[in-house]
Amino acid sequence: MKAVGLITEYNPFHNGHIYHLRKAREITGANVVVVVMSGNFTQRGEPTILNKWQRTQAALENGADLVIELPTFMAVQPAHRFADGAIRLLAALQVPSIVFGAEHPDWDFDQFVQAEAHFMKDGFARYNATFATQFNQELKQATGHTLTEPNDILAFAYHKAIVKQRVGIKPVAIARQGSQYHDQSITGTIASASAIRQAVLGGRPVDQVVPKQTANDLSHLDSIPDWQILYPLLRNYLIQAPIGELQTIYQMTEGLEHRMKRAAQQSLTFNQFIRQLKTKRYTYSHLLRLCFYTVMQMREDQVQMHLQQPYLRILGFSNDGRQYLHTIKKRVSLPLITKCGQAERDHLLNLDYRAGKLYQLFTPYEQDLKRAPVMISGSGTVKE
Amino acid sequence: MKAVGLITEYNPFHNGHIYHLRKAREITGANVVVVVMSGNFTQRGEPTILNKWQRTQAALENGADLVIELPTFMAVQPAHRFADGAIRLLAALQVPSIVFGAEHPDWDFDQFVQAEAHFMKDGFARYNATFATQFNQELKQATGHTLTEPNDILAFAYHKAIVKQRVGIKPVAIARQGSQYHDQSITGTIASASAIRQAVLGGRPVDQVVPKQTANDLSHLDSIPDWQILYPLLRNYLIQAPIGELQTIYQMTEGLEHRMKRAAQQSLTFNQFIRQLKTKRYTYSHLLRLCFYTVMQMREDQVQMHLQQPYLRILGFSNDGRQYLHTIKKRVSLPLITKCGQAERDHLLNLDYRAGKLYQLFTPYEQDLKRAPVMISGSGTVKE
Repeated sequence: MKAVGLITEYNPFHNGHIYHLRKAREITGANVVVVVMSGNFTQRGEPTILNKWQRTQAALENGADLVIELPTFMAVQPAHRFADGAIRLLAALQVPSIVFGAEHPDWDFDQFVQAEAHFMKDGFARYNATFATQFNQELKQATGHTLTEPNDILAFAYHKAIVKQRVGIKPVAIARQGSQYHDQSITGTIASASAIRQAVLGGRPVDQVVPKQTANDLSHLDSIPDWQILYPLLRNYLIQAPIGELQTIYQMTEGLEHRMKRAAQQSLTFNQFIRQLKTKRYTYSHLLRLCFYTVMQMREDQVQMHLQQPYLRILGFSNDGRQYLHTIKKRVSLPLITKCGQAERDHLLNLDYRAGKLYQLFTPYEQDLKRAPVMISGSGTVKE
Repeated sequence: MKAVGLITEYNPFHNGHIYHLRKAREITGANVVVVVMSGNFTQRGEPTILNKWQRTQAALENGADLVIELPTFMAVQPAHRFADGAIRLLAALQVPSIVFGAEHPDWDFDQFVQAEAHFMKDGFARYNATFATQFNQELKQATGHTLTEPNDILAFAYHKAIVKQRVGIKPVAIARQGSQYHDQSITGTIASASAIRQAVLGGRPVDQVVPKQTANDLSHLDSIPDWQILYPLLRNYLIQAPIGELQTIYQMTEGLEHRMKRAAQQSLTFNQFIRQLKTKRYTYSHLLRLCFYTVMQMREDQVQMHLQQPYLRILGFSNDGRQYLHTIKKRVSLPLITKCGQAERDHLLNLDYRAGKLYQLFTPYEQDLKRAPVMISGSGTVKE
């Protein structure tokens, strides 16, 4: 069997993702599509509009064969760590190539990686600009290009992770179809995930741009997952916890604990809070992730320990996916998890379990304990 | 000027409280009524249906002259500590007597205090019954009576605190009017606070049993303060915090941290949670207070430190109240606080401030920082 790997969030799963799944098979000649997907919180630190089981179901019904959860401590991370985690899992899953969308699929991302290795030797010294701004000034000088589009940034991160980990995965960039990430319009049959979320928030129809499964799930939302709803939990924790405790939160650097406590005391809404927190030094994504680490009480030592114990949590598979797992099983170096029992809840999967409990603010359904993988009969290939 | 002291919660302020204020003047001949009142959380560990400023206003408009907040660390406590705190403040305020309602005002509570001093010498050994059950078995043997009604229990606690603190305050018990604490009907012009809260929850009219100010405030509630609304904050904290951290919470004894974490993981609603937590060993009130300490992250050392730094936080006064304060000012041994500035927020009043922030789940209004006392012109005496 020949596999190809995809790295996804599916927030939510839409027609552009179906195109991506088909194109990956077509380009690589693979007959098994292995998908690594963020769980209930995204790389940006936001709760997903549909839960990980709903998104797994939609992916399996539309061309995926095996869906693996990117663990919370790898998923809710800046692009380079997100990519690094996903590549580790896909390498363990013996995937010979990955296919991903990029705004500039023709760029020589390997050249960018070499350029960065050179100009990053001394680090960045300015504190009044984000990391991204300083990075791009250097990259522009070295290559004539800047990384500003989200999928270009991830494409670069995948190349870098492959080089760093010295794994034999071939990265294949393809053009994104139909709409850009920032494009908020819904016309035709493909729209960006972000545009779809906005449409759902606004009560506008999205049936033309998502498959049936997603449309159905979106029409039965108990509440729309959102930081507004999580904010009272974050706010109370920031107010009640001593400063010394806040300082131990993962990525709580440069006195941000004081800014966060003060902003929480003074802000009744999340919008107010995050605006008060924002400085030129940090992007919104960075701050959203920090909010997530805080409400989860994630600590530096905890994250480091978990990063040294990666695993393959299977969210679902087709017949082909199951067969593929069977053929590679003996060569897989990471633990394969099909069920979260009490031991996993308290140890290996503890952070995913806790993220799932936080996510229960939006849904009554248990997200981890004793949940069995989604299984669909037949192959993931969509019949046309 | 001659003062009398009342110890109250006013949850909410109703016609029975007006009777209490009048009766206190009448019996003692006092012309100034000094009221010590719980803040935004009650002795039982529940958020008050109206905030402390609304309840202060209602009290001042209906016969009180001076309203002092019983600090959080004294108010949200079992009856004996609640009484102990209130008596400390009233003694500092130079009050020669207190008047309180009791279900059995004719009982010789001083005799009960002596009996208890005797039978408590060896402590209680049984772990399958609440403290109250074991206490009453002993009291019954010694005096022929049992303390089961809430106001009898408080009456006993006031006597005990006065004896213990050796202060020259005369305790005067009066009969409660109109309805008992557990009586849930609203007939006539007096109903219990508990019956009034139930009526508000059920959307039934309460105008006949509360003064205008209370009726007006109750008809403009943003949301009805309730543990159901606080539960997501408590739940997430219990799930995310390490067991070792939960163990440091005030009154977290005998492995309750494990029971609480497990119950939080498994319960989506507060009712489910508290039922799962309940054992014969603990009363609901004890557990509700523990929930409050937990969501506030109150720690043993913090509470002990605050208990050694009591203060008189003035929530409001009438002209007579202000004059009374003026006459006693030089002899008052505790700090008199009229405003919570940044220093008070971070130190002396820190727990009250944090409780107020928690209470902001129910109201957009800042509860402490820079709030000025309620002032009403004229005396607290109600003109008939």
